[in-house]
Amino acid sequence: MSDEFSKRFFDYVDERKNLYIDRLAEAVAIPSVSSDLENHLVDINTMIAWTKGHIERLGGLTELVTNPAGTENRPLPPILCGSFVSNPHKKTVCVYGHLDVQPAAKDDGWDSNPFILTERDGKLYGRGSTDDKGPALSWLWVVEAHRELGVELPVNIKILYEGMEESGSEGIFEIIQRESAPGKFLNDVDFFCISDNYWLGKNKPCLTYGLRGIAYFQLSVRCCEQDLHSGVLGGTVYEAMTDLIQLMATLVDSSGRILVDGIMDDVKPVTSKEEALYNSIEFDVEEYKEENKIKSVSDKLLHNDKKSLLMARWRYPTLSLHGIEGAFSGSGAKTVIPSRVIGKFSLRLVPDQDPEKIARLVKTHVEQEFAKLGSPNRMELEYFHGAKAWLSSPNHPNYQAAAAAIKTVYGMEPDYTREGGSIPITSTMEDSTGMNVLLLPIGACDDMAHSQNEKYNVKNLMNGIKVLGLYLHELGKIKG
Amino acid sequence: MSDEFSKRFFDYVDERKNLYIDRLAEAVAIPSVSSDLENHLVDINTMIAWTKGHIERLGGLTELVTNPAGTENRPLPPILCGSFVSNPHKKTVCVYGHLDVQPAAKDDGWDSNPFILTERDGKLYGRGSTDDKGPALSWLWVVEAHRELGVELPVNIKILYEGMEESGSEGIFEIIQRESAPGKFLNDVDFFCISDNYWLGKNKPCLTYGLRGIAYFQLSVRCCEQDLHSGVLGGTVYEAMTDLIQLMATLVDSSGRILVDGIMDDVKPVTSKEEALYNSIEFDVEEYKEENKIKSVSDKLLHNDKKSLLMARWRYPTLSLHGIEGAFSGSGAKTVIPSRVIGKFSLRLVPDQDPEKIARLVKTHVEQEFAKLGSPNRMELEYFHGAKAWLSSPNHPNYQAAAAAIKTVYGMEPDYTREGGSIPITSTMEDSTGMNVLLLPIGACDDMAHSQNEKYNVKNLMNGIKVLGLYLHELGKIKG
Ligand SMILES: [Zn+2]
Ligand SMILES: [Zn+2]
Ligand SMILES: [Zn+2]
Ligand SMILES: [Zn+2]
Repeated sequence: MSDEFSKRFFDYVDERKNLYIDRLAEAVAIPSVSSDLENHLVDINTMIAWTKGHIERLGGLTELVTNPAGTENRPLPPILCGSFVSNPHKKTVCVYGHLDVQPAAKDDGWDSNPFILTERDGKLYGRGSTDDKGPALSWLWVVEAHRELGVELPVNIKILYEGMEESGSEGIFEIIQRESAPGKFLNDVDFFCISDNYWLGKNKPCLTYGLRGIAYFQLSVRCCEQDLHSGVLGGTVYEAMTDLIQLMATLVDSSGRILVDGIMDDVKPVTSKEEALYNSIEFDVEEYKEENKIKSVSDKLLHNDKKSLLMARWRYPTLSLHGIEGAFSGSGAKTVIPSRVIGKFSLRLVPDQDPEKIARLVKTHVEQEFAKLGSPNRMELEYFHGAKAWLSSPNHPNYQAAAAAIKTVYGMEPDYTREGGSIPITSTMEDSTGMNVLLLPIGACDDMAHSQNEKYNVKNLMNGIKVLGLYLHELGKIKG
Repeated sequence: MSDEFSKRFFDYVDERKNLYIDRLAEAVAIPSVSSDLENHLVDINTMIAWTKGHIERLGGLTELVTNPAGTENRPLPPILCGSFVSNPHKKTVCVYGHLDVQPAAKDDGWDSNPFILTERDGKLYGRGSTDDKGPALSWLWVVEAHRELGVELPVNIKILYEGMEESGSEGIFEIIQRESAPGKFLNDVDFFCISDNYWLGKNKPCLTYGLRGIAYFQLSVRCCEQDLHSGVLGGTVYEAMTDLIQLMATLVDSSGRILVDGIMDDVKPVTSKEEALYNSIEFDVEEYKEENKIKSVSDKLLHNDKKSLLMARWRYPTLSLHGIEGAFSGSGAKTVIPSRVIGKFSLRLVPDQDPEKIARLVKTHVEQEFAKLGSPNRMELEYFHGAKAWLSSPNHPNYQAAAAAIKTVYGMEPDYTREGGSIPITSTMEDSTGMNVLLLPIGACDDMAHSQNEKYNVKNLMNGIKVLGLYLHELGKIKG
C-alpha cells in the first residue's frame, strides 16, 4: 500500500457515503430473520440473492452451497461462497459474515421501524445495521473501490456468508470442515477475518484475540413420578427441589468463587506481557455499570479496577446458575412438590481448560456433595454441551496487518481485547484449516446488536470500509 | 333415632339406588367447570338452578345470594342458600358443599367421557362424582327420604352451596362473615358439616378434625435491571441467582428439617391421648408410596412407620421449595444471568403456630443469612399469604354424632384423621360463628378427585346417604 493509494481510496469512499447508506438501507429492508424460518426463509434467500448479485456484478464467482443441516420438511438457506481470485501467488483471505438478523418489531420499543434504516444524529438505526449486514457488506464495497479506482486487489478474497448465524449457525460448521479438505474452497486460505463483534468502548477500535469456552450442565433430581401437593405430602417425602438447591449452592459462592475442586488447576497465571496489554485499554468501569443497568441497583461489581474486571470477563473461568426446569416458575403462589427438577448452570472456560476434564471435575463434585446429603432421590448430571476457549495472538501478522490499517485510519493503536462469550465458528475455522483467525470489530460497544434500536454509526460505516480496504493491502505485504 | 327408623330408612335408600345414580348422572352431565367461566359460567348457573329446583320440590326455601366478588365485567355464580327449618327449638345444622368441578377432557386420559357418568365394577366414573356433587346432593336425598317416609327432620337444615370452590371459593368467605351476624342466615347454626374431603384409605370411614395452616413466601433478589449474558458479563456481576440459591439452601435440609431458628417453638408435644388416636388408624405406608409414585423412584420416605409418617403430614410443620420465578425455566440451554429471581417456598403450619410470627422468624432468618453473603444485591422477602391451622376435637358432640352414625352403618368406629393441606372455609365458619365444624368425608382415598378417572363408589354413595341421615338423628339427640 502506498500513501498515494490510501489517499485516493479515502476520497473515493468519502464521496460515496450516501450510496453506502442507501445500499445498507436496501439490505436492512429485507427482514432476514432466521429465528422465524416459516415466515422469513424467503427473505433470507432474497438477502443472499441480493448479495450474490453484487459479488457477480463486481466480477466475483459465486456458489450457493446447499445447507447440509436442512431437510425436505425444514429447508435452510444455502451458504453463499464467493471468490475474487486473481493470482495464485497472492495470499488469500477468507472473510466471514452473516446476512440473517435477530427478530425485531416496532412494538418491542424501537423508536423507528426496525426494517427502515433511519438516520438520526449520525447513527443509522435498523435491524442488522451493525449485526452483521453493515460490516459484512463492506467487503464488497472495498472490492468495488479497487475496480473503480483501477487498482488490483492485493490479495485473493474468498467470501463465506451464511444466513443462520442468529439461530445457531446450523450447517456451516460441517461446510467449513468439508471445504477445508485438499482442493476445496477453503484449502488455500492463508488468513481468516470475521467482522461480527464490537469494540470494547465507543471511540477506540480494537482487535479481539481471545474468547472463552463453555461447559453447560443440567443437574436433575427426581423424587417421584408425578408432582405432589405440599399440603398433602409435605413432611413425608425427600423433596427433589430441596436436594437440587443444596447441590446448586455448593457450586459457587456469592462472590463468584467457583467451589468445584481443581477447577483452577489449568488456568495459566498472568504473564507480565499479557498484563501489559491491559494497561492501555480504554474501558470505563462506571460506564460499564451504567450500560448494564447495575448502577441503579447495587452499583457494585465483583472487581472495581479496569484490569481485574476485564481479566474476570476474559481470562478467568466463571460459573453462572441460569435457572431450574420442572419447578414452579410462574407468578403467584403454587404449592407444588415438583417430582423432577433440572438445574441449569454453565462455566465459561479459558485457554488450557479442557471442557471434558471440567465435566469430570463437576461430576465428581456433585456426586460427592450429593452423597453428603444422604438423599435416596435420583440425581443425574448431564454435560449438555461444551466448547474450548479460543486464544490467538496480537503478534500474529494477521493482527498486525489490521493494527496497521487501524493506525492509518484512526491515527491510534487498537486495543487488544478478548471476549467472555464464545463464537464457535472461530475455533472451527482455526481447527479445520490451521490458519489464523482475526476478529476485527467495526461497530461500537453501544450498537445494541440483538436489542431495540440497533444502530451503526455513519462514522463506523465509513471508517470500517477504509480499515477493511487497508487491511487487505497490509496482508498483501506479508511474505512467506 | 330408633332402630325402627334406621331399618325403614336403609330399606328405602337401598330401593332407590338406580334413582340416586340417575340423578348423579344428571348432575355430572352439567360441566360446571369454575376455572373456565368464559365457557362454563352458564353451566355452573344451570347446576345451581337444578339443585335449587330439588330443594324447592322438597319443600325447602331457597335464596340465590349475589356473589360479592363478582363484577359487571366478570360475573360470578351466586351462592345457593336453602333451608328446611321446621322448629326453632330444634338444633340447626348447616351443610356445605360445592356444585362446581375441576376441568376434565376425555383426551386427558379418561377411560370414558368425564361428563357421562359411567358405571364399571361398582364405580361411578365422572367429573364431580365424588368432588363434590355426589356427597353434596346426598343431603337432599336424606331430606326426601324423611318426607316420603313421613318422618319429621330431627334438626333444622341450612344448606350452603357454592359454585366457585375449585377456583378459590371467591366470594363465599365474605358471605359467611356477613351471614353470621345477628338475625342473619347462619346466626342460629349450632353445627357445621362439610363433606368435601376423603377417607385416609379405601375401606374404613374417618372423621377429620385437623388441617394444617400455611405461610407462603416470595424471596426476591435483584442484581440489575435487565437480564445479562453470562458470556459477556459473567465474572463481573454479583449474580442474583447465586444469592437466591444460597439463601434457599439455608431454609431446609434434605431430611426435611426446617433450619429457621425458633420455628418449632410453638409446636405442642404429642400427648398420650393424641398418640392413642393414631394407633387404630388404618393406613398402609407401602400403599402410600405406591399411590404417590415414590416407590418406583426412591422407595424411601422421611418416616417409615405409620405413626411418624402421619404425624409428619398432620401435626408437624414442613417447608417446601416450590420453584423460582424470573430464572430460566425452559428446556435446553440458555446462558442468561437473570436480573431478578423470586424464590417461592411455603411452610405448612400446625396448631398454635401463628402465621404472622412465623413470617417474622423467616424474615429474621433470611436477613441474617443474606448479611452473611456480603452481597450488594437487593433482597426482599414477601409474606405472600397465610392461614392458621385448624384443629377440632374428636370428642365434640358434632363428631360423636357422626361417629355413632358411622358405627350403625359400617359396624365400625371411624378413624380420626387430620390433613396436611388447608380448607380455608373451615376456619372461616368456625371463626365467624364460634360453632363446631365437622369434616365428614364420604368418598374413598382412591376416588381421584382433580385427576383423570374421578369416581365415586356405588357403595360409598349408598352408605353416604345412610350416614348423613343417621348423623342428623344423632345431632337431634344432643341436649343443651
Ligand atoms: Zn452477528
Ligand atoms: Zn448477532
Ligand atoms: Zn371439593
Ligand atoms: Zn376439589
